[in-house]
Amino acid sequence: MLPITTLTLNIPETRKPRVVIIGGGFGGINLAKKLRGKNFQVVMFDKQNYHGFWPLLYQVATAGLEPDAIAEPLRKLFSAEDYDDFFFRLVRVTHIDPVAKVVSTLIGDLPYDYLVIATGTKTNYFGNDQIKKFSFPLKKIPDALNLRSQMLQCFEQANMTGDPELRQNLMNFVIVGGGPTGVELAGALAEMKKHVLPYDYPGMDISKMNIYLVEGMDRLLPPMSPESSEKTYKYLKDLGVNIILNTLVESYDGDKAVLKNGDQIGTNTLIWAAGVSGALIDGLPPETMERGRILVNEHNQVLGFNDLFAIGDIAFMKTDKWPKGHPGVAQPAIQQGQLLAKNLQRLQNKEQLEPFEYTDKGSLAIIGRNRAVADLPGNLHFGGFFAWVVWLFVHVMALVGFRNKLVVLSNWVYRFFTYENGTRLIIRPYVRKGDKIKQRFFDKYNAEE
Amino acid sequence: MLPITTLTLNIPETRKPRVVIIGGGFGGINLAKKLRGKNFQVVMFDKQNYHGFWPLLYQVATAGLEPDAIAEPLRKLFSAEDYDDFFFRLVRVTHIDPVAKVVSTLIGDLPYDYLVIATGTKTNYFGNDQIKKFSFPLKKIPDALNLRSQMLQCFEQANMTGDPELRQNLMNFVIVGGGPTGVELAGALAEMKKHVLPYDYPGMDISKMNIYLVEGMDRLLPPMSPESSEKTYKYLKDLGVNIILNTLVESYDGDKAVLKNGDQIGTNTLIWAAGVSGALIDGLPPETMERGRILVNEHNQVLGFNDLFAIGDIAFMKTDKWPKGHPGVAQPAIQQGQLLAKNLQRLQNKEQLEPFEYTDKGSLAIIGRNRAVADLPGNLHFGGFFAWVVWLFVHVMALVGFRNKLVVLSNWVYRFFTYENGTRLIIRPYVRKGDKIKQRFFDKYNAEE
Repeated sequence: MLPITTLTLNIPETRKPRVVIIGGGFGGINLAKKLRGKNFQVVMFDKQNYHGFWPLLYQVATAGLEPDAIAEPLRKLFSAEDYDDFFFRLVRVTHIDPVAKVVSTLIGDLPYDYLVIATGTKTNYFGNDQIKKFSFPLKKIPDALNLRSQMLQCFEQANMTGDPELRQNLMNFVIVGGGPTGVELAGALAEMKKHVLPYDYPGMDISKMNIYLVEGMDRLLPPMSPESSEKTYKYLKDLGVNIILNTLVESYDGDKAVLKNGDQIGTNTLIWAAGVSGALIDGLPPETMERGRILVNEHNQVLGFNDLFAIGDIAFMKTDKWPKGHPGVAQPAIQQGQLLAKNLQRLQNKEQLEPFEYTDKGSLAIIGRNRAVADLPGNLHFGGFFAWVVWLFVHVMALVGFRNKLVVLSNWVYRFFTYENGTRLIIRPYVRKGDKIKQRFFDKYNAEE
Repeated sequence: MLPITTLTLNIPETRKPRVVIIGGGFGGINLAKKLRGKNFQVVMFDKQNYHGFWPLLYQVATAGLEPDAIAEPLRKLFSAEDYDDFFFRLVRVTHIDPVAKVVSTLIGDLPYDYLVIATGTKTNYFGNDQIKKFSFPLKKIPDALNLRSQMLQCFEQANMTGDPELRQNLMNFVIVGGGPTGVELAGALAEMKKHVLPYDYPGMDISKMNIYLVEGMDRLLPPMSPESSEKTYKYLKDLGVNIILNTLVESYDGDKAVLKNGDQIGTNTLIWAAGVSGALIDGLPPETMERGRILVNEHNQVLGFNDLFAIGDIAFMKTDKWPKGHPGVAQPAIQQGQLLAKNLQRLQNKEQLEPFEYTDKGSLAIIGRNRAVADLPGNLHFGGFFAWVVWLFVHVMALVGFRNKLVVLSNWVYRFFTYENGTRLIIRPYVRKGDKIKQRFFDKYNAEE
């Protein structure tokens, strides 16, 4: 990376109206896809050069899939073979000025005709800096790879300590948050405990491994139906997960988690999947924000602007049916992105805009091999092997590229028949930032001489 | 990772003779496999928890394969389902005492009955600390991932600079060393230049990308036949690679490579594939070493010892046919590991040891799609598409696990029909150690707020 002063955005001027999209998530890519060939110049900014299929991120963390199986390079998605006048820039947006209609980045400013904020969410630690410092988030690919390294290092080390308390702390895993990420991660860990770890660590008593799942509300998967919550609870119990409901984690210092109910759990690994907040950008008027999201009308226009939009998780669209906004999953983002592409054309043609109406396609969560829960529209709930197959099909089909589908499917088929996770590689040992003892150890460990 | 004092090796005592293997490369794993069920306790040490198929490492660097396609966890290879009394420890060996028969590690000592050094090689910078600091090695998976990030970052940035000299430096890639790694890497880069980059970076003049391949000797692939060297030269020339023979790189400061012949090449990326030296371990008598390798007799016994062995690249076995030792490829290591397993049983039974005789299975190098060169035993040389298919078959078949074969094969078939590399992901931006400007940039770039 060069000094910032030597870089510029380098976007060619054009007579077409310029649509700037901040974020290459589900909303951003579906918008850009539908704008193909529609007489706009499209500029996309992202801090990553790939689009990720985040519902499968927990699979990377538990050594089931490699990153390339769930991520696709944005430049490949919008290759010049198929897209004209599309520009991707790998740079951070620092500020927007919706009055002057200018986006500022680390390396320069860009005027826009239409601006779409599709930045999604980031991990929310609810202001607890200690938990932020010591816990493992699970929002990005590097997070998942860090967690994978950490879990494998824990077992390697548990295998090499004579201190029973330390060994137990290394074998205790606390997952905070009983939403889809927490539930699916707990299920995958429980399957590893049962089918993989006893063969990898023959000298160890793997039955001493504990998986805790802590949820603040009174049921798991609160956005799903009570039936699915109940099934999920039963499935995870059967798999040996310790479920603690109605409780928050109050503090975590890297060795010990203290719960609001007074319980204490010694653990070297606390995974924080307890909440997200909008990844906001500087420059929006305060009245356009509520609960860390951006208020939009039924056309995804930001309150008070004609040419400024927010879609997906960052957008807060209050409707009669969804007074708290749409669920924070892929579908609303995809559908809003697709509709917005049409509405931008209508705006250009001075036609009336179409209001957004969310088509709920149902929700699914996988708890383990053969076990999943599904809520389908029309108050239909089911579980078990059939839900698992549906889950597999829906997820694999939703993956963006042909190659990914092939990789994921062959991995899944292989795992189904062998109970075997494939990628238990510690490629970069994880060292918590600022931990000098561990850093010294790994410096010695990696020393060349 | 815990403070070192809390960890111990924790290897159970046994009545069986204990074989300690340092290194899970081709030699080490083939030895351990053949010792299965043979009444030995086997302890393997490695600093990585995986076995890598290094001939394909350049594919990871050029975004063709993900790490899991070329690496297999050692614990999975030696799972308790199949192996009894096998112990893997992820720890660095610091010293050996061949008289007291003790191996020392970062966390404790272990007595042995038989010790096998199978540590392979490490990058050799020939004492040039400047090159060591600024160049990119290509020996390990993290090296390959760093190089992948670096190359992709270079194009992202070349796309965003108005300074023509800087842009050219970002688009110049210098590969030092015309052995298999250098040649295969140059070929893969040239294919990316032709089939991938123009579509990923439509606004850029990719024809300005330059690939330099610098070799100190008078031909490429010096260990192969002159016929294959010539074909390789022609293939790479056709692909547009700038080949510079009979020349060494004298210095590189991160921006400019200075060659012995006086040439200077501005480049942000210099890949160092110019040489390796043995990964030696402290404690061996000096007379057992020559040219950075360990002298062994025809039974792979280290000079002067009965129970100490070296196999693979680290071993230097002088024979009439191979006065400079065996070639530094997988086959000698595999064959020595397999034979040593038999010889250890003979030693136990006080039988005569079998001398090692190398079966040359030929060598292959791939230069690009449809282009490869092969030297087969019996002075048979061929090239072109047929060599490419042989190369593909040999490599995929040699991969250790079933799953890897499936992943690699499906990737290769996909790439063959689409000219498409799959994994152009910048998962962890590469920042050269000590580069404060870049570090500051990436800190800003990755900032959460």
